[in-house]
Amino acid sequence: MTSPNPDLLALNAATLREQWDLRRIVEACARHRVRGVAPWRDQLATIGVKDMARMCRDQGVTVTSLCGAGGFPAADRKGRKSAIEQGLRAIEEAATLEARCLALVAGGLPRGSRDLAGTREMVRDAIGEILDHARSCGVRLAIEPLHPMYAAERSCVSTLAHALDLCDELESGRSGSLGVMVDVYHVWWDPTLAQQIERAGDKRLLGYQISDWLVPTTDLAADRGMMGDGVIDLPLIRSWMEAAGYRGFHEVEILSKANWWRKDADEVLLTCKLRHESAS
Amino acid sequence: MTSPNPDLLALNAATLREQWDLRRIVEACARHRVRGVAPWRDQLATIGVKDMARMCRDQGVTVTSLCGAGGFPAADRKGRKSAIEQGLRAIEEAATLEARCLALVAGGLPRGSRDLAGTREMVRDAIGEILDHARSCGVRLAIEPLHPMYAAERSCVSTLAHALDLCDELESGRSGSLGVMVDVYHVWWDPTLAQQIERAGDKRLLGYQISDWLVPTTDLAADRGMMGDGVIDLPLIRSWMEAAGYRGFHEVEILSKANWWRKDADEVLLTCKLRHESAS
Repeated sequence: MTSPNPDLLALNAATLREQWDLRRIVEACARHRVRGVAPWRDQLATIGVKDMARMCRDQGVTVTSLCGAGGFPAADRKGRKSAIEQGLRAIEEAATLEARCLALVAGGLPRGSRDLAGTREMVRDAIGEILDHARSCGVRLAIEPLHPMYAAERSCVSTLAHALDLCDELESGRSGSLGVMVDVYHVWWDPTLAQQIERAGDKRLLGYQISDWLVPTTDLAADRGMMGDGVIDLPLIRSWMEAAGYRGFHEVEILSKANWWRKDADEVLLTCKLRHESAS
Repeated sequence: MTSPNPDLLALNAATLREQWDLRRIVEACARHRVRGVAPWRDQLATIGVKDMARMCRDQGVTVTSLCGAGGFPAADRKGRKSAIEQGLRAIEEAATLEARCLALVAGGLPRGSRDLAGTREMVRDAIGEILDHARSCGVRLAIEPLHPMYAAERSCVSTLAHALDLCDELESGRSGSLGVMVDVYHVWWDPTLAQQIERAGDKRLLGYQISDWLVPTTDLAADRGMMGDGVIDLPLIRSWMEAAGYRGFHEVEILSKANWWRKDADEVLLTCKLRHESAS
């Protein structure tokens, strides 16, 4: 398999969130010739959306995705309405940042609920409600299935098949305004992964995030590995993405409490570059 | 929904493995009128397979499943051969115990491997190799998908759909000699669960294990909840099992380092009985 194009490397800003604020992260991306960055919404607070947009333009760094939107299910109408308002605001932020997509993490069961089917309906309805606004702002919504170990608390959408079913139901036209974020960490185990990536095709493949699954994994929330340190066959999954027509960035997202969040940020960034080339 | 038949309660012996040996567990099941027990292979060491079989017969306790078999993938031919020999031995143990089924946990990636597809082929081939012996011993093999968070280390079969695909490939006749173990802990999150249980039908549904998914879950390996303490809609899943024709036991399997393994074993057993009735 051929090495990935180094110009397609992007950094999800969560990877350095414990070391640096967004401003320093963007500066470092430019300095290390990393051409894309993906901020989280909470990280935007320190710099502001407009300044972030200007800074990325000035430094020649593309915003590959905006993260931290979603969380639609709620126990009552008020909570659901507020989640939709947040979604609309996130769309506007993504538009200002000219982000390639807005990543949507569905949300888990409302407190006290065991109604998984009902929760999934809330997610479908909420995405349906914000889709028009996204279209009119020119923002692509990327539903991101999370690993099933997060099904209760963070995302009741756990598989690419489920995310693509939602896309088909809400936007049968495949205009490109609704699709999926493929994060290998969440979906690598799926025996239907190749088939679902092919099904998605270039119109639905809006983003691609990489990291690795460590053996053993010691923490459910934040023990992701650097590419090459775990068991995911990253070149193989990339080859499926490419065969399906995906030409976008490869966004490194490593949440790592015990390891990478404690290291020198420049060292992390350099390691990302090396491993993108050698192990992705 | 109606309450479950209390005569269908069974205890997976792992639930009390930190408190008692198998002999005491079987005695306690009889004393508490729990009609089924599921030993793990390593627990049989203290009592021996024949004595265990005799004791269960004498006490009127059915062996619902034998656990701890599988782990087929290996890096070399010798390792794979040894895993198959272990599988054949487990089949004979299950026959002696007159177990309703032998649960098979596929196994994860061989050390150093990232070849998930090849690993899955090893699993298919190995089950194919032991199936005849199981048939001739009158032992039903139940492939148990484990939660995707165990895909790397313990089971590359993570979904009911995958397990049923294996059944269809290896035993298209649906004679009842090859099927699945449905453990709610591993599959509750699956958006196709109802559909796959229906697809399985009574011929393929060989066992049913219950516990609960806690929020938050603090430990990947052993932080399962007592029925009713988590977010799984157990009565709903049971209704799917029953609609598909399943009439077997409901085997409580709670691996709980921080909680249930530390409690008085009789109290745990009584709680299982109560929660089976009120929350399953």
